[in-house]
Amino acid sequence: MAKDLTSRKDNYSQWYQDLVVKADLAENSDVKGCMVIKPYGYSIWEKMQAALDKMFKETGHSNAYFPLFIPKSFFSKEASHVDGFAKECAVVTHYRLKTAPDGKTIIVDETAKLEEELIVRPTSETIIWNSYRNWIQSYRDLPILINQWANVVRWEMRTRLFLRTTEFLWQEGHTAHATQDEAIEEARKMLDVYTTFANQFMALPVMRGTKTANERFAGALDTYCIEALMQDGKALQAGTSHFLGQNFAKAFDVKYTTKEGKQEFVWATSWGVSTRLMGALVMAHSDDDGLVLPPKLAPIQVVIIPIYKNDEQLALVSETAVRIKAELEKKGISVKYDNRDTQKPGWKFAEYELKGVPVRIAIGPRDIEEQTVEVARRDTKEKSVYQMTDIALKIEHLLDQIQDNIYKKAVDFQNANTFVADTYDEFKELIEKGGFVMAHWDGTTETELKIKDETKATIRCIPLNNKMENGTCMLTGKPSNQRVAFARAY
Amino acid sequence: MAKDLTSRKDNYSQWYQDLVVKADLAENSDVKGCMVIKPYGYSIWEKMQAALDKMFKETGHSNAYFPLFIPKSFFSKEASHVDGFAKECAVVTHYRLKTAPDGKTIIVDETAKLEEELIVRPTSETIIWNSYRNWIQSYRDLPILINQWANVVRWEMRTRLFLRTTEFLWQEGHTAHATQDEAIEEARKMLDVYTTFANQFMALPVMRGTKTANERFAGALDTYCIEALMQDGKALQAGTSHFLGQNFAKAFDVKYTTKEGKQEFVWATSWGVSTRLMGALVMAHSDDDGLVLPPKLAPIQVVIIPIYKNDEQLALVSETAVRIKAELEKKGISVKYDNRDTQKPGWKFAEYELKGVPVRIAIGPRDIEEQTVEVARRDTKEKSVYQMTDIALKIEHLLDQIQDNIYKKAVDFQNANTFVADTYDEFKELIEKGGFVMAHWDGTTETELKIKDETKATIRCIPLNNKMENGTCMLTGKPSNQRVAFARAY
Repeated sequence: MAKDLTSRKDNYSQWYQDLVVKADLAENSDVKGCMVIKPYGYSIWEKMQAALDKMFKETGHSNAYFPLFIPKSFFSKEASHVDGFAKECAVVTHYRLKTAPDGKTIIVDETAKLEEELIVRPTSETIIWNSYRNWIQSYRDLPILINQWANVVRWEMRTRLFLRTTEFLWQEGHTAHATQDEAIEEARKMLDVYTTFANQFMALPVMRGTKTANERFAGALDTYCIEALMQDGKALQAGTSHFLGQNFAKAFDVKYTTKEGKQEFVWATSWGVSTRLMGALVMAHSDDDGLVLPPKLAPIQVVIIPIYKNDEQLALVSETAVRIKAELEKKGISVKYDNRDTQKPGWKFAEYELKGVPVRIAIGPRDIEEQTVEVARRDTKEKSVYQMTDIALKIEHLLDQIQDNIYKKAVDFQNANTFVADTYDEFKELIEKGGFVMAHWDGTTETELKIKDETKATIRCIPLNNKMENGTCMLTGKPSNQRVAFARAY
Repeated sequence: MAKDLTSRKDNYSQWYQDLVVKADLAENSDVKGCMVIKPYGYSIWEKMQAALDKMFKETGHSNAYFPLFIPKSFFSKEASHVDGFAKECAVVTHYRLKTAPDGKTIIVDETAKLEEELIVRPTSETIIWNSYRNWIQSYRDLPILINQWANVVRWEMRTRLFLRTTEFLWQEGHTAHATQDEAIEEARKMLDVYTTFANQFMALPVMRGTKTANERFAGALDTYCIEALMQDGKALQAGTSHFLGQNFAKAFDVKYTTKEGKQEFVWATSWGVSTRLMGALVMAHSDDDGLVLPPKLAPIQVVIIPIYKNDEQLALVSETAVRIKAELEKKGISVKYDNRDTQKPGWKFAEYELKGVPVRIAIGPRDIEEQTVEVARRDTKEKSVYQMTDIALKIEHLLDQIQDNIYKKAVDFQNANTFVADTYDEFKELIEKGGFVMAHWDGTTETELKIKDETKATIRCIPLNNKMENGTCMLTGKPSNQRVAFARAY
């Protein structure tokens, strides 16, 4: 076990917290609930951003930026939205400080009170739809396909690094459409983008579905989501895409003239993923020795470590190391050659295991003689001796293999931890073990809340393309025509 | 003149405001002093970010993210800093809203008052140095070279799109060093990075120098800056890089152990550029027909417009247009083929002139016959007929020429508007005309403020590598050993 990392078995939650801090991903700040994302963690987030941003642009979206502050009155305009969001939030009431009479401390200047309080955005539907009113007159102005990369604030009482923080970073897409069908198609398309990203970049299988009325986004008619399973059997909502109907258009009076000259309200979607994905990435793949990063999101994909006893040997090894580094970089692989003489190889091995670097190459004088290198993969911890011939090609192939293997392992885990329960007793037993439990439910919020109350399990989603199957609600015995996915969740 | 754009001669300030709005760069929001950066404007900002971010990384910096909120007490720790920043800022005092007794409006929940108010960051030295205290123990932990891309808020009474807004986007570098020399070297290196960026990407010549004590960043020992000249003869501070000495290390108790085992305070720099650069870009190069964008920052570098009378002609022209587009894109040139049939070519010509697209290619049936295209460059408005052979190579070359020409024009403008004044009368006359006026000054804040009071001119900088030259202060007659650059400024 690496550097005093708690093991997953001993305390999963502590293991997570230890790992995030020790692997230099993030730390708590002195501002309650707010984190500092450290360079290593931020570089993973940058890779996520780059991949997502490319996919957003390929699907026709542009980035823009809207104000951080939202006038309080905007929230009152969409009734369900205010209940969901405006309550627990940071409120700006003043715009000036002054030196206190003691001449030392500074205090709020009471004469600089805002006429209307400003809310630090918890999400931007209101401020954006207030702008869209002026941008949209005719069907020719539609669709509007905009995304924003931003920070948002939701006042949280209990926070955990990445998973739930008062301030977090995210992207929020906000689109406007002429028809309901087009808006629904957009919401589903973005769910597909999130799914592709989770699968192909994060190596994370997800369950795709819609939320129940009770779990829906405040202001949405339908919330599509991707749900992932963590190693402790708890589910994590990894991304959501909302079909908002005409709710925000009505709240902000956004109408357009159709081709036929009629006035209609505009249809909307919004969709987002956040730095929460960093938490999902850590919790889905990592082990008791540290991070396990899928190569596509690893800031350092290959680390080369020289093994030597004296300067002469180091010079010999370095020559080859530098050449291999250049060959790998020519293939677009990011490589670090760690030739620091302040640390021993064993220390470095542990360090890069902790940091989740997918491939480690060790080169010693003996390797130079035999034209070999020792290659260790992080995911399986296997070590092999490679001939140096075509080394870049071999490593490129190995990185693909690792990406696939991490994904496959996660798929196997999800499959092995997706259960079917027919009775409430079975359900309670399975939920205790963790994983998704597929069960019949009568479709009412009342039953959903009672189950949550008794078992701490929530309906994660009603799976898309679900098999229709007649059955009876495990709690009330009322008829049901499909199973839904329950789990305890982050 | 394009689309009711005010001319620069008639009202430069109105021209700027019109252009920013009509070219779809940005608009005022309903939140006082905050702007909405629209997709076209944001895509220019993304190009700026990408170029700068690459240069930051090439000079060894990593990105990270620190909290939006700063506890009020942090500001009291660095005395000069609080005077400069903490006074005009957004203050968060509460963390919850509730429904008012009327059941409709929402109001601040007075029971949810923060024990200590939080300030929305106007700049992040305090929160970052509070973190660095825990990150730095030994000389081995230094240097720390971090940059942050973020939004910041400074409560401004009079705002102008991009140039001065309550919220703006920027990057702020914050570095920590073992020695004074290393910190000064870093501050100067980043000034070089900004200079290169301004010259090579923005096509903007800048005057490089240090600020006077009076104009220095609050908390800095030395502020390096780049100053650019706008077409109305006013200067604009385009970027600053600060040598902060040990001020923040002392305020936040950040010490390190030297190789020799001694405890020393850490040395600091910070440096930043913001969305203000968008304003500089517009004001430096654009004309009465719209934006003039340097190709390296233009979201669309080439627009292709078909000229046709019927569907058959359009089909004919489109075939060639699409092929040319593909050839240009192979060279990494961003191209838009605007084949909309809702607008006439003339309307499109004006539209892309307004948007500052560097090169316009028009293709008609006659061109297809003769294997030519009509090429118009935005900067000089020259039109030429090009043979289609090697068209991509020719356009690539033309884009380079345009980039160079825009820069050269700006350099000529700066040279033609940099004057030397020996007497105060001369100075007042020249300042009235606009431009930089190089004059002797006695080095005191008192004189500096008196000149500002009487002429509205400020000392933009004491140029780096300034020629030493004995003279006498134009106002007080006291001795001076170099001229400094005065100007009226944004």
